[in-house]
Amino acid sequence: MTERVRILGLDPGLRNTGWGVITVEGTKLSYVACGVVTSDGDLDLALRLKQLYDRLTDVIRTWTPDEVSVEETFVNKDAQATLKLGQARAMSLLVPALHGLPVAEYGANQVKKTVVGVGHADKNQVQAMIRILLPKADFKKADAADALAIAIAHAHQRKARALAASY
Amino acid sequence: MTERVRILGLDPGLRNTGWGVITVEGTKLSYVACGVVTSDGDLDLALRLKQLYDRLTDVIRTWTPDEVSVEETFVNKDAQATLKLGQARAMSLLVPALHGLPVAEYGANQVKKTVVGVGHADKNQVQAMIRILLPKADFKKADAADALAIAIAHAHQRKARALAASY
Repeated sequence: MTERVRILGLDPGLRNTGWGVITVEGTKLSYVACGVVTSDGDLDLALRLKQLYDRLTDVIRTWTPDEVSVEETFVNKDAQATLKLGQARAMSLLVPALHGLPVAEYGANQVKKTVVGVGHADKNQVQAMIRILLPKADFKKADAADALAIAIAHAHQRKARALAASY
Repeated sequence: MTERVRILGLDPGLRNTGWGVITVEGTKLSYVACGVVTSDGDLDLALRLKQLYDRLTDVIRTWTPDEVSVEETFVNKDAQATLKLGQARAMSLLVPALHGLPVAEYGANQVKKTVVGVGHADKNQVQAMIRILLPKADFKKADAADALAIAIAHAHQRKARALAASY
């Protein structure tokens, strides 16, 4: 009997955190749901983080994933942007940990390489590949598509690890 | 009758987050407690953030502050360090927000200027001033002393704001 695992992918951001849920059963991937949780830019940072916390808690309670996959933050020269992203990303790591879920992290290039086959793929290539791998996926926003890509990357990586472990 | 307010100051860090609790009643400051919450550097980031979350939750439940004051993060050229600090700092903002507490933020220089009188005061000057303002304060670690300074800064600033509002 093949194990059936439900994976939540998260693409962290303070304004928009994308999320996508898939199941993997052997080599078969299936789309479950995706969307974006947002925080209100007019509020203080503490309250924005609370919004992300509350909304990610809702996503986890609603879709009950077994494992979580989070994109590693792109660190750039804009220190203020890096700080913001770090704060938003902390919510994507904390909320699954509070639910006892294992959290894997993947770099953006690793996600693209796993999903499309090349590390420098653009957004359109990633989205075209998601439409092939998950034909039922209904994503209106790029952040939700990215989150599905992060979930797919984890599905592939955990299979590769399981194969390696079986030798 | 003078309002009595209990203030929690937080000095965020991923390994060590300093905390300090004082009360302010009119112009009178009193020491309540201080310490450091830590996360285990051997664990994954998600679990380290959960440790900070759990331990800060304990501090807030034990010492029941009315208001919280958090040091603004010093953003430097080391982007990885900035990212780490951002993630730790998110816990210092989130946990009070989840308890419905107002969270004020002050820059490091603003804290020094308020507590010592000059923005470029060194650690020893800050600690000497805390010993004068809070003679009962028992801090073994610099992070706890910094957290008390952040609480004192908020006590002064909120009084200044209240005075300004009364004109």
